[in-house]
Amino acid sequence: MGHLGENGLNCELGNGVSMCGNEESFEKESNSSSIQYAVKVLLMGLGEDINREGIRKTPLRVAKALSEGTRGYTQGVKEIVEDALFPEACVGNSEVGDAGGEVDGLVIVRNLDFYSYCESCMLPFYFKCHVGYVPSGQRVLGLSKLSRVTNVFAKQLQEPQRLADQVCSALQEGIQPKGVAVVLQCKHLPFPDMESNTLQSHHKGVQGILVSAGSGAFQNKDALIWDDFLGLLNSRGVDKDQIHDKGSLDQCWCPSLSSSKVSVKNEEINPLMVTAVASILKSLGEDPTRKELQGTPGRYTKWLMNFQCSSIEKKLKGLVWSGTNGASSDNNTLHSELNLPFLSQCEHHLLPFHGVVHIGYFTSPGFEIEKSLLQTIVHFFGVKLQVQERLTKQIAETVSSLIGENVVVVVEASHTCMMSRGIEKFGSNTATIAALGRFSTDLAARAMFLKSIPSAESL
Amino acid sequence: MGHLGENGLNCELGNGVSMCGNEESFEKESNSSSIQYAVKVLLMGLGEDINREGIRKTPLRVAKALSEGTRGYTQGVKEIVEDALFPEACVGNSEVGDAGGEVDGLVIVRNLDFYSYCESCMLPFYFKCHVGYVPSGQRVLGLSKLSRVTNVFAKQLQEPQRLADQVCSALQEGIQPKGVAVVLQCKHLPFPDMESNTLQSHHKGVQGILVSAGSGAFQNKDALIWDDFLGLLNSRGVDKDQIHDKGSLDQCWCPSLSSSKVSVKNEEINPLMVTAVASILKSLGEDPTRKELQGTPGRYTKWLMNFQCSSIEKKLKGLVWSGTNGASSDNNTLHSELNLPFLSQCEHHLLPFHGVVHIGYFTSPGFEIEKSLLQTIVHFFGVKLQVQERLTKQIAETVSSLIGENVVVVVEASHTCMMSRGIEKFGSNTATIAALGRFSTDLAARAMFLKSIPSAESL
Repeated sequence: MGHLGENGLNCELGNGVSMCGNEESFEKESNSSSIQYAVKVLLMGLGEDINREGIRKTPLRVAKALSEGTRGYTQGVKEIVEDALFPEACVGNSEVGDAGGEVDGLVIVRNLDFYSYCESCMLPFYFKCHVGYVPSGQRVLGLSKLSRVTNVFAKQLQEPQRLADQVCSALQEGIQPKGVAVVLQCKHLPFPDMESNTLQSHHKGVQGILVSAGSGAFQNKDALIWDDFLGLLNSRGVDKDQIHDKGSLDQCWCPSLSSSKVSVKNEEINPLMVTAVASILKSLGEDPTRKELQGTPGRYTKWLMNFQCSSIEKKLKGLVWSGTNGASSDNNTLHSELNLPFLSQCEHHLLPFHGVVHIGYFTSPGFEIEKSLLQTIVHFFGVKLQVQERLTKQIAETVSSLIGENVVVVVEASHTCMMSRGIEKFGSNTATIAALGRFSTDLAARAMFLKSIPSAESL
Repeated sequence: MGHLGENGLNCELGNGVSMCGNEESFEKESNSSSIQYAVKVLLMGLGEDINREGIRKTPLRVAKALSEGTRGYTQGVKEIVEDALFPEACVGNSEVGDAGGEVDGLVIVRNLDFYSYCESCMLPFYFKCHVGYVPSGQRVLGLSKLSRVTNVFAKQLQEPQRLADQVCSALQEGIQPKGVAVVLQCKHLPFPDMESNTLQSHHKGVQGILVSAGSGAFQNKDALIWDDFLGLLNSRGVDKDQIHDKGSLDQCWCPSLSSSKVSVKNEEINPLMVTAVASILKSLGEDPTRKELQGTPGRYTKWLMNFQCSSIEKKLKGLVWSGTNGASSDNNTLHSELNLPFLSQCEHHLLPFHGVVHIGYFTSPGFEIEKSLLQTIVHFFGVKLQVQERLTKQIAETVSSLIGENVVVVVEASHTCMMSRGIEKFGSNTATIAALGRFSTDLAARAMFLKSIPSAESL
């Protein structure tokens, strides 16, 4: 591990100061440079050249994203809810006669989208939040505050049940209503199974869990008021019977805790990387010795090692295609292989992106490439630090080298960096296309292929 | 208009300074106090008591929301895109042989959600953005920058075609690619037709339009590369044939420009309110004399006047129900009237919220309340400055006064204040419930009613 020698790192740190451009203001934050240092250790541990232009600023971007993504540690709930309670005592009094004058009805804000970070593996996870409360003291809360309070706890390292409990307690304490109910629909990224090259089965279902928390009138899970709350969520796809019971979460939530999904062996883990991740946790304001976090640096390092820099030629060497080269004149049948799943890691933010690859090529009938070979190519180019544009081109060129030049590749992907940080565009989805040979000029052929791509559901 | 006398306003402005609570930092912005002054003029013009606790801070909230919502006027594109271009020259070189080495493929980011403000009426409008470019000079742009650049132009007073053109030009100039394509799916809130009490027909369809812009390789609308771009949007519900031609937009986009939709007559418009709106435009950094904005203060004032404070008793006096009072013992048939549309104006932010009301009550068979009467009640309580909790309760109490005490009301609404400002939770939706009489204790009855509510699609 010569890369990780002290000289190299110190030298790079010295350069770090000049790296910031328009992101200078962030540099002032005290913990940023130590996170950047740790990220450099990780990149070098992956075998990357930390001076390569694409990842030169990755340490800065990761530090910024992590600090933003865990800003909840320094935020308070009290400041959010104070001044946001409005009196509704006059309801029913002034205009249509007095029928009690108290807003005693349940208020539910549904379908709030968030990202949080999994405390077990440090990957971002998505959740949809439904939160309700029964007002008391003739006071109602500004609706946006339910979202703002949830975000304080979302922006921490979390696991679903604790997140629900914390949001619930904070609202109960902050606004003192008759009761608070919280339901979270959480989705975790799957971990790749590196033993087999085909990721199909692991990509189809994103790891999901439904948790709830209640206080006051909602404290008892069997309280009848839960029926009102869930009755109004029912139409939104929330099934009461699927709500997870407290206690037995760890086994089924984060894939990093399920040993069968972890292909990188303990002896392959570089202890310098593990130490670097632990130092990041500390810089974010967490206690790395907290029980739930003790294994996190190791698990995150294992995840990262799936994307270590390696020779693709070596990986691809074993692959053979039994067909003939497709340059002969009768190669005029368009063949499409659609929805090949992939998982990759964005080199700009060290965050996963994943989706499907569609490959089209001309060949003679009977000379199609085996689907498993295409899936292997897709897999190999996915499991390293990547950008989607390069991934698309590399797959096209590799397939072209097997079958001849007439190849078109479309990649459709969800980028967690577009959702879990900064712009937080939850439904966004990126499509890229690389067209080689005949596909680069023959628009009718390209259109025919594009039409064959099914309408994908975004995650 | 004694309310708008100078004394009252000056007095209130004097108090304004102490209104800020934890939002003090914003007060420093130079234009905030003049916007707050103007909002007070508007509230008084609506007949509101500006010292009522629910709206006491509305001027501050509106000023803050408007300034945030138009921050694009002070943002530059150059700072966003510089440092965000990454070289991809090595693609295809290092690992699988040289096949050109240029990332010449189209990159599309789809389904980016935004809110902007309509320059014709100052209401927020929603749009979904799809933006693509063909890289040149072997450089690709960080994906999030396409969203950030779009947001600069979204956060201004806009109309769809100009917005698309500006995003396109800014990206073309900022990153100098081979071409840029932009498609926007825009939705405008409907205006209520106050002539008829039933809003049904106007609420069903939100005013929508599809616009596009292209530069470089996309400059010509008939260029074949548009087929690639639209081919990759096709599966996302974008139909090429529905893209609006430039030029003839004004008639069909903003409902305020269609005179038939404006029920408030010119002579009812208070000139002080119009002047106040013009001063807001100026404070936001706009030129109120710009051609497209010349009628905006009048149109926004007309919109607001739909929600003027008025005596509901007077409005409801003309309503009669031909049934008998429902207190007799055989009133045990649950009757549900579902999906009654409403449009209202949030008194906290002066922003619209809209959705549907579901009403359940027990009555004898044959003694149901006419749907049109219920719709009128819903309408009357909607068209004023409101909060959803109060609206729900008021409808329940009014129906109860007609039919007897056993009434349950559920209101489901989308709040533009939850989406166009601050937390920007696009899919969020709020449900409130008020249960009177038997419904407040009989959970089986409430559950039966809740089950009858169809799963609603959010806007």
